[in-house]
Amino acid sequence: MDKVLKALRAGRDEHVDRLKEWLRIPSVSADSAHRADVRRAGEFILAELRGAGFQTKLVDTPGHPVVVADWLGAKGAPTLLVYGHYDVQPPAPLELWRHGAFEPTVEGRNLIARGATDDKGQCLALVRGVAGMLAARRALPVNVKFLIEGEEEIGSPNLESFVRAHKDELAADVVLIADTAQLGPGKPALTVGLRGLLYMQIDLAGANRDLHSGSFGGAVANPANALCGMIAALKDGAGRVTIPGFYDSVRPLTQAERAQMAALPFDEREFQRGLGVEALPGEPGFTAFERKCARPTLDVNGLLAGWTGEGAKTVLPCKAMAKFSMRLVPDQDPETIRNATIAHLESLLPPGLKMKITCDHGAAPVLVPAEGPWTRAAVRAVAKGFGKEPVFMREGGSIPIVSTFRKVLGIDSILIGIGLPDDNAHAPNEKFDLDDFQRGIETAAHFLEEMATVSRAH
Amino acid sequence: MDKVLKALRAGRDEHVDRLKEWLRIPSVSADSAHRADVRRAGEFILAELRGAGFQTKLVDTPGHPVVVADWLGAKGAPTLLVYGHYDVQPPAPLELWRHGAFEPTVEGRNLIARGATDDKGQCLALVRGVAGMLAARRALPVNVKFLIEGEEEIGSPNLESFVRAHKDELAADVVLIADTAQLGPGKPALTVGLRGLLYMQIDLAGANRDLHSGSFGGAVANPANALCGMIAALKDGAGRVTIPGFYDSVRPLTQAERAQMAALPFDEREFQRGLGVEALPGEPGFTAFERKCARPTLDVNGLLAGWTGEGAKTVLPCKAMAKFSMRLVPDQDPETIRNATIAHLESLLPPGLKMKITCDHGAAPVLVPAEGPWTRAAVRAVAKGFGKEPVFMREGGSIPIVSTFRKVLGIDSILIGIGLPDDNAHAPNEKFDLDDFQRGIETAAHFLEEMATVSRAH
Repeated sequence: MDKVLKALRAGRDEHVDRLKEWLRIPSVSADSAHRADVRRAGEFILAELRGAGFQTKLVDTPGHPVVVADWLGAKGAPTLLVYGHYDVQPPAPLELWRHGAFEPTVEGRNLIARGATDDKGQCLALVRGVAGMLAARRALPVNVKFLIEGEEEIGSPNLESFVRAHKDELAADVVLIADTAQLGPGKPALTVGLRGLLYMQIDLAGANRDLHSGSFGGAVANPANALCGMIAALKDGAGRVTIPGFYDSVRPLTQAERAQMAALPFDEREFQRGLGVEALPGEPGFTAFERKCARPTLDVNGLLAGWTGEGAKTVLPCKAMAKFSMRLVPDQDPETIRNATIAHLESLLPPGLKMKITCDHGAAPVLVPAEGPWTRAAVRAVAKGFGKEPVFMREGGSIPIVSTFRKVLGIDSILIGIGLPDDNAHAPNEKFDLDDFQRGIETAAHFLEEMATVSRAH
Repeated sequence: MDKVLKALRAGRDEHVDRLKEWLRIPSVSADSAHRADVRRAGEFILAELRGAGFQTKLVDTPGHPVVVADWLGAKGAPTLLVYGHYDVQPPAPLELWRHGAFEPTVEGRNLIARGATDDKGQCLALVRGVAGMLAARRALPVNVKFLIEGEEEIGSPNLESFVRAHKDELAADVVLIADTAQLGPGKPALTVGLRGLLYMQIDLAGANRDLHSGSFGGAVANPANALCGMIAALKDGAGRVTIPGFYDSVRPLTQAERAQMAALPFDEREFQRGLGVEALPGEPGFTAFERKCARPTLDVNGLLAGWTGEGAKTVLPCKAMAKFSMRLVPDQDPETIRNATIAHLESLLPPGLKMKITCDHGAAPVLVPAEGPWTRAAVRAVAKGFGKEPVFMREGGSIPIVSTFRKVLGIDSILIGIGLPDDNAHAPNEKFDLDDFQRGIETAAHFLEEMATVSRAH
């Protein structure tokens, strides 16, 4: 490994330059105006893999294309499937960025840009680590496949059918994903649980036009008032979701799980200080850490109605919109919860209004085993790459594909966090620690080597 | 009067041309970017009055300037004060206009533009009627003063102090205002009650940045959820305002008042059909007409939080904003209600959030007498100008200055509706019936003549 590590370290500046180049492509999958940019970002990582000696192809879907690549020269050795995504969240609100969202800028140890951590930075760490090892040795100790998609940030609507259609081609022993985070600086982590996701939009419509709130107020239903009432009725004052049946399938946290979480080096005071808030309210009976990782919740993601500019406009708006999402935990079923939510919203709709509900996103919650040979290989790889053994933790975010891989390919995923929890994923000034980037690159190479060891021990 | 009416009718095209010219000036008082335009609209009506032979001046205030003018050649005759405003509501949402909001366009009998009815069209009817009479006769039968302001749409913040400072200069027997509406086409009306107004904005702030709703959801207060809860808690499900003490000072409608309103030619089915809604929900125990004219209410005017663009962004927003307004009725006091509302909002604020409340607007509710010599003169003038006697009605909108005139100058206002209730005041495609414009012009001249008759009968 010395030769490999030497080469990976010598390539540090080039790793960063390539990442910057990728980050300059505004691959916002949610915005149809960026359709061509999304494709360009896929072609970028495809060229990177092809240049490194992988067989590659770009496969079109009804949405954005999928990049697949493989190197299968390790006969008899196990096979790794690396998953990542090349699309990014929208950069809004633009005015809060210190630099252009797509003008990657180094500030101290950090690189600032949309996608820096989620997921271009973390994904490229795996790609550069594997590619660098192949370049240094002209061979890999295991077979490696890549599946890098462009629709993760919009719920991977076409990926499950893609995986089903390419089941044999994607066959592997285990999946490696770098799309979660460490527990904190110098606290590397393997994620063993992910929350599911259900993203919905409500559009309420009242009168056929905006009205003068003086001349009409009181006589006609106001969709903005009604929307607030409906959203408010989705949670109680304490923070529990009030959709009937919402908690029915929630697997209670065991004493062992709670003890494990409590033992993690997570400082609630520091967490609170970092957010600049005076309290961390939420579902009673659970710590903030449990609530953000292992309990289901419901958050409004967007609200829009009427006059939102400067000053006073006495308009009674004719429509109002809310986007909200639920994070689900085992064993909540997105489909069941979706139906319960729609039924609840329909029961809440006041007279005189019309409602349209759109479901954008769905992902099942998932738990992956915190044991087994691949997990132990990952622990050893992280210990070598980061100089410290990883903790096991649950993460509050969702990676829809993890449950798909288990369901369709029958394999588990190793979720390795290279970024940090305060990296501002989905927010302005998204960042990525370039030292962690280098550690991630080296960890990827170590993981291939450790996988091969497992194989020999079988 | 024949000579006057002949001249007013011969001037019809010119009346319309002048109105179009005025409407082309985007005098949006709420938008500081239009500051110069607002002033220009004031200078326009000032030039119109000066050209007609009035003494004029433009008086600066801390906000937008006030136009004052007078003709005091009718020694011993009573004095009329005409009030109007040259500022307009913001034109948003622009995409719903069939033509540019400041490109006045004739469609059939209607002129479409922001301000067409509210209040440039109605105000200019009074100006052209009076000016035309002065031109035709070289004298007026009564003394006439004008007070035309540029801040009505933002709550006339500087007008009360202006009226106090110019109390003697503005002394008159009665005020004439055309800033309300007829009951319907061919149903002219004098308004004898106006609701008050209280306009507020709530800004909630949570964490110091937008967060990923997966990684943080459940652990930290979401200002958008909280805002919905707070807005929802301002009204009950049936439509009654739940701010403690809100109804304490509401003067109950008498049986006579309710009978009078029920007798008005207002068709609730037609009203509902015109709005395109399937129901007209609202405060129990009152008709839709009563609710929009004579009962207090609370409406959200604007909502904004998080991601409002296309698709799904799983952001946990760090701030959320709502604008809302209350319409008040006699004897609710805006100051008392404002304090009660702030106290209620403060009691509703969940932990972990900061709240800023801004009060933009305040206007007392007002009732004007449906009797007396000036009102009878107005009834006769409308009967001649519109060919039909007006009904008396209450209006749901607010004209803050009416209570100021009574308080400071000790005089009542005659509120004559020239526009129509479906003129889309404050909404896209605001319109004004040009036949009504002409009727309003002639009614103004008739009113001066009828005022002089009253005087002689004294």
